[in-house]
Amino acid sequence: MRRGYFITLEGADGCGKTTQSRLLQEYLEQQGYEVVWTREPGSIGLGQRIRELLLYYDGEVAPRCEAFLFLADRSQNIEHVIKPAVAEGKIVICDRHTDSTIAYQGYGRGENIEELTYLNNLATAGMKPDLTIVFDVSTEVAQLRVGDEKDRMEAAGIEFHKKVRFGYLELAKTEPERIKVVNADNSIEQVFEDTKRIVNNMFKK
Amino acid sequence: MRRGYFITLEGADGCGKTTQSRLLQEYLEQQGYEVVWTREPGSIGLGQRIRELLLYYDGEVAPRCEAFLFLADRSQNIEHVIKPAVAEGKIVICDRHTDSTIAYQGYGRGENIEELTYLNNLATAGMKPDLTIVFDVSTEVAQLRVGDEKDRMEAAGIEFHKKVRFGYLELAKTEPERIKVVNADNSIEQVFEDTKRIVNNMFKK
Repeated sequence: MRRGYFITLEGADGCGKTTQSRLLQEYLEQQGYEVVWTREPGSIGLGQRIRELLLYYDGEVAPRCEAFLFLADRSQNIEHVIKPAVAEGKIVICDRHTDSTIAYQGYGRGENIEELTYLNNLATAGMKPDLTIVFDVSTEVAQLRVGDEKDRMEAAGIEFHKKVRFGYLELAKTEPERIKVVNADNSIEQVFEDTKRIVNNMFKK
Repeated sequence: MRRGYFITLEGADGCGKTTQSRLLQEYLEQQGYEVVWTREPGSIGLGQRIRELLLYYDGEVAPRCEAFLFLADRSQNIEHVIKPAVAEGKIVICDRHTDSTIAYQGYGRGENIEELTYLNNLATAGMKPDLTIVFDVSTEVAQLRVGDEKDRMEAAGIEFHKKVRFGYLELAKTEPERIKVVNADNSIEQVFEDTKRIVNNMFKK
């Protein structure tokens, strides 16, 4: 059986990637693919429990603790969701993955990027996405879209989000084959057209 | 103000270290010390929530996920409990810490010990215990003491516990200044006499 594909969707909060991930899932299913949708932190089971701690725990969280919780969730997601699905020939769409760690904890919070990269590799046991789409949104548009419904991560402020955005664009420069950038200031329809084009290009390879 | 002390208690399940930690706390408080008791995984707050996942989550947990959850808890414990208390001149007694990771995940489950040591150092930001007491118990006695009330870790079997015990003894060999071994097959009273002697020796230094 043919190995499937592992696609990750990335971008700052408010970039619209969750909407796009659902549209993409629908589109791929219409093309006859079997699609598994997941997210980090927390899609199901233990990951869901870790997600609750990360996003809604109301006490102070040490930065290193936060980083390790994300990695714990990632290890579980790789081992119990992503690897098995890709091995069965399915397409996995993952809403946030390793690049979020580098963009948020690394560029955003200023933690050591080499260290985070090493930790990411431990968590994924070296498994890399076949394709990563970064939905690049200007900080102003992102803040408007997020509105007042901010969770703990989203409440971190405009300056933080600018650093995260910068981080994603830097990552895209270093891995242009894997990471494709879409202008997410555009309408949902336009962004989705760009997304489909990128995914179809991946299939052609 | 004088810096306090950071003491960790280690050993296989059923070694009696939780009982000993309570006796030691009482004894030190009688001597006029301010003592903070903590444990890993999970003493309070977020740590307590992580502990519940580690010990009582009833699905399958990927080994890497487990390791990262322990490290997340450790980072939080170091940052929010241990460091502040030691800085205030208190004695911290911690029931399990970094050596548990090496003994259980490393020697017990066969994960890479160098990698785990690196991760431990990240989680503690390099903070080391002033003293570590390993309660060394024969596997047979440990199993008898644990009885039928096994949590997820304790249910892992006799062979596993033998490897863990071996791991602790190896660690004690490599760091004889920090790590002291007590024969925990003895009675509670005898074990506590040995414990007090070791702690009082630390004070003399």
